[in-house]
Amino acid sequence: MKTQVAIIGAGPSGLLLGQLLHKAGIDNVILERQTPDYVLSRIRAGVLEQGMVDLLRKADVSARMDAEGLVHTGFELAFNGRRAHIDLKTLTGGKTVMIYGQTEVTRDLMAARQACGAQTVYEAANVRPHDMKSDQPYLTYEKDGEVHRLDCDYIAGCDGYHGVARQSIPADSIKAFERVYPFGWLGILADTPPVNEELVYANHERGFALCSMRSQTRTRYYVQVAAEEKVEDWSDERFWNELKARLPDDLAQRLVTGPSIEKSIAPLRSFVVEPMQYGRLFLVGDAAHIVPPTGAKGLNLAASDVSTLFDILSKVYGEGRTDLLAKYSQVCLRRVWKAERFSWWMTSVLHKFPDTDDFSQRIQQTELDYYVGSEAGRKTIAENYVGLPYETIE
Amino acid sequence: MKTQVAIIGAGPSGLLLGQLLHKAGIDNVILERQTPDYVLSRIRAGVLEQGMVDLLRKADVSARMDAEGLVHTGFELAFNGRRAHIDLKTLTGGKTVMIYGQTEVTRDLMAARQACGAQTVYEAANVRPHDMKSDQPYLTYEKDGEVHRLDCDYIAGCDGYHGVARQSIPADSIKAFERVYPFGWLGILADTPPVNEELVYANHERGFALCSMRSQTRTRYYVQVAAEEKVEDWSDERFWNELKARLPDDLAQRLVTGPSIEKSIAPLRSFVVEPMQYGRLFLVGDAAHIVPPTGAKGLNLAASDVSTLFDILSKVYGEGRTDLLAKYSQVCLRRVWKAERFSWWMTSVLHKFPDTDDFSQRIQQTELDYYVGSEAGRKTIAENYVGLPYETIE
Repeated sequence: MKTQVAIIGAGPSGLLLGQLLHKAGIDNVILERQTPDYVLSRIRAGVLEQGMVDLLRKADVSARMDAEGLVHTGFELAFNGRRAHIDLKTLTGGKTVMIYGQTEVTRDLMAARQACGAQTVYEAANVRPHDMKSDQPYLTYEKDGEVHRLDCDYIAGCDGYHGVARQSIPADSIKAFERVYPFGWLGILADTPPVNEELVYANHERGFALCSMRSQTRTRYYVQVAAEEKVEDWSDERFWNELKARLPDDLAQRLVTGPSIEKSIAPLRSFVVEPMQYGRLFLVGDAAHIVPPTGAKGLNLAASDVSTLFDILSKVYGEGRTDLLAKYSQVCLRRVWKAERFSWWMTSVLHKFPDTDDFSQRIQQTELDYYVGSEAGRKTIAENYVGLPYETIE
Repeated sequence: MKTQVAIIGAGPSGLLLGQLLHKAGIDNVILERQTPDYVLSRIRAGVLEQGMVDLLRKADVSARMDAEGLVHTGFELAFNGRRAHIDLKTLTGGKTVMIYGQTEVTRDLMAARQACGAQTVYEAANVRPHDMKSDQPYLTYEKDGEVHRLDCDYIAGCDGYHGVARQSIPADSIKAFERVYPFGWLGILADTPPVNEELVYANHERGFALCSMRSQTRTRYYVQVAAEEKVEDWSDERFWNELKARLPDDLAQRLVTGPSIEKSIAPLRSFVVEPMQYGRLFLVGDAAHIVPPTGAKGLNLAASDVSTLFDILSKVYGEGRTDLLAKYSQVCLRRVWKAERFSWWMTSVLHKFPDTDDFSQRIQQTELDYYVGSEAGRKTIAENYVGLPYETIE
């Protein structure tokens, strides 16, 4: 089998890249280790930046998002018993975010791919990239007991942090930057009305809490827990009580609880590899970088990588601009590091750090006081939250 | 001897408070452990915020500063081989800073105090505050072999970090917050023309450097050194070579060197005590808080404490508003912590930290990239650098 761009991974990054390439007339095949149902069962992010919303519209997969997604013009930071509003729209000159679950994005992209007839190979086992440094790279994979070969011009590694793409790059050709935080997020999904119209990020002496949502009837709440906590030890009742204890009184009083339909603990990590390319292999999204979820940058950062790679590949195929290929990593990393910084900062100011000293605690409180109290400070939060602009590839 | 306000310390804080009180008709006496010449020999800060400039004008001691001081409308941050300009005046809607040495401020205040005949006792040994919790506090001190007593209504502790004022407060009545940085600043004073019209704060892989000045003919330069470095090991030549190595090429090439007229190493520390008052004793400036010099906040923060204490005392004596006395600490600390935060942040982003990990280094570079590249980011730097507004006491 032969294609122009071989994509590893049928999560939102791989599917979105595939859709954009297909619309531009660039042939592509996606190899995915799991089944479609497995991919859809992963509960992830739900806040889309303006740039990602625009990219989904460009890929012509935005109809349901535009109909059902919730446009949020701000969010709240709660600390020291007060609630401070970050008015995204006013502070950024009109930008907003869209509340629409990653699962729904993936579902829409799957439907679009099926409708256009582009090929996705699910349950492709042991995917391996080969000859990435040559101009004739290819992938091998196993399916139905046979080994297959997919020849291609370029490979996009959209297969996440645990995927094969990054692991196929020789260790001496990439460098990893990492920070593991000493806590995780215990999250639940519930069919209850949101406690607040906007998201609430709460700094509390018991630990961080986040009130998020997927729709007007489905909520996503999180509480910071110790890294070693086990989800089995958290009954729904214990979760709701802990969440209430961390929210400002008025919110705690009006919180509607209900049975969880999903409950899990995720570790918090910052991770970046440099460079994000090796020969004709390009790493996209979580394959190259992980952010802690504070600030909702993970999926959005994958989307900006997709945008950059698509812009480059469409100029390569359309205008013969193969010189642009070498720029992929540096263009992506400029934006990646800024999102890493913002995610690290939001994590730093909002969580309770075990073993931190008194000085650091006062600095944390003062960071919140200062940034929320200063218009310039609020603007720095807002412009990062809605997403810094994508770079133009020229 | 009896006075209304007894001031411990004849540095710039004590002298400025004394001058403001004197002009408001409030009697005060200053006790100083050292001689006037010793006080003047301490080389310290040289960047005055707008608020401090205004306060010196209000105290009627600004004539020479207004004639000889240099108004700076911006400063530079150098990193990654580039020089970025922070346009203070534009970014803050017209605010600037004044370059005028602390020594000169002190000299002007000494002259004003002498001219108005207010009393300063120099070489007052073993100053001790007594009965601070009563409404009849007093100080004792030794001078010319005799013990003296100074009765007063209130005591202002303007005697610095090592002074007796803070140390007189029972340990269980105050709490200290501290951060000691793993490096110091080696500074020299030289009669050479400044390398640049504005101050340059440089982040370099060899360590931080600062190009500052006292006048058009006197420069003050610093390089970050390890905490254990000894000034004897730094010849002028070694200093100048190290400074050049840390500056952008164009600045290094035009740097004019010359013999140092002062050379010393200062440790970097963040320190705050809470509360800043105990009964009728009020801590002012370095007696209550220390900032690392990055950001030039030390003297300016002392000035805002002086302003707060003066506003309260003038309302106490003028309007009988003794209720305001209890507010001193909380009003000061709000501004103190914000200046501590800015000083900590400037220190964090500009210095090389030994044993820091790769992730932290990238975050540091990205902080500089982001804040300098974003107008909102530059505004946060500028509004803190010119000084956050003083609170009105009501």
